[in-house]
Amino acid sequence: MQMSKNEANRDLIEKIKQAEEEYGETFSNTQKILLTTDGSITAILDVLYGKITLTTLDQHFETADKSHAKLVNVSEGEQINYREVIMHKDGRPLIYAISHIPLSRCDENICADLVRADIPIGRILKNYNIESRREINNIFIEKPNETLKELFKTDEDMLARDYVIINNDEILMWIKEVFPISYFKEI
Amino acid sequence: MQMSKNEANRDLIEKIKQAEEEYGETFSNTQKILLTTDGSITAILDVLYGKITLTTLDQHFETADKSHAKLVNVSEGEQINYREVIMHKDGRPLIYAISHIPLSRCDENICADLVRADIPIGRILKNYNIESRREINNIFIEKPNETLKELFKTDEDMLARDYVIINNDEILMWIKEVFPISYFKEI
Repeated sequence: MQMSKNEANRDLIEKIKQAEEEYGETFSNTQKILLTTDGSITAILDVLYGKITLTTLDQHFETADKSHAKLVNVSEGEQINYREVIMHKDGRPLIYAISHIPLSRCDENICADLVRADIPIGRILKNYNIESRREINNIFIEKPNETLKELFKTDEDMLARDYVIINNDEILMWIKEVFPISYFKEI
Repeated sequence: MQMSKNEANRDLIEKIKQAEEEYGETFSNTQKILLTTDGSITAILDVLYGKITLTTLDQHFETADKSHAKLVNVSEGEQINYREVIMHKDGRPLIYAISHIPLSRCDENICADLVRADIPIGRILKNYNIESRREINNIFIEKPNETLKELFKTDEDMLARDYVIINNDEILMWIKEVFPISYFKEI
């Protein structure tokens, strides 16, 4: 009983181990933290690089098909805000991210900031004092698609994770983050 | 207007810069992240070292004096749970922490886990699906007191921070974390 109460992060530890085994090398501390943290990724990048910038690559509303509805636990046919961004420092790409946010759960202010301006989600949540928790779904290695090859100017393997941000016991957003496997290896 | 919405982490960046200037060296990525993250510190240590262990050094209830009341924004005289712990990996000390939790804001289950067992707060919040946000107050360098010297077997300077965890728009806990300045410098 007391044992099991100390097992909260067992899943995370296992997921990183599996990804390392698949890759055949251990990850750096920074890579491990970026892949597993339940804190703001933007805040970490801001502190490591000085204030970073987000550029929106695509942003639109779409009607959830079966698979997208499942990601955020809404009914098929509901409206979802789709956003695809690159976080960079003075044009040097750092992390690519996709987010899906069901409109029905998105406060008016948050929605407006998502649509109108290049503001990272971590900063939006902080600006509005949103209380939330994050649940990591998957940590994995993937081959880059054309968008990623173009953005990062490489065809090397990518480290990726997807997770949900939960607010009021419901999924507020589903997020996938991706970066080249050679990134964030320095101290 | 849009500018200011992207300034959420300006304070954090400044605080790290000031501490680095005071110290006269730059911190490692891991040190910077541990000092600034709004995510779970336990989760980070779990992932970097394999599941870590918490040992409670002291745990008691106390009546808040003026200064302690201020830390958690309650009235003088209210009851507070005080806990002093060391997080370690197989006896190797990693981070020392003190927490103050007003009993009036502490759910029965959370209180029981704080008192009964050696469970880190990050794991407790996760076990009960608590939605929260963290606000970093201070990041600083300090000289070790006798407890810290004894625990870490060193008299070198310590890196420290204090922050609050906010739940239902109120301070659920005030936490201070401390580690020797030579720790977490590896990749």
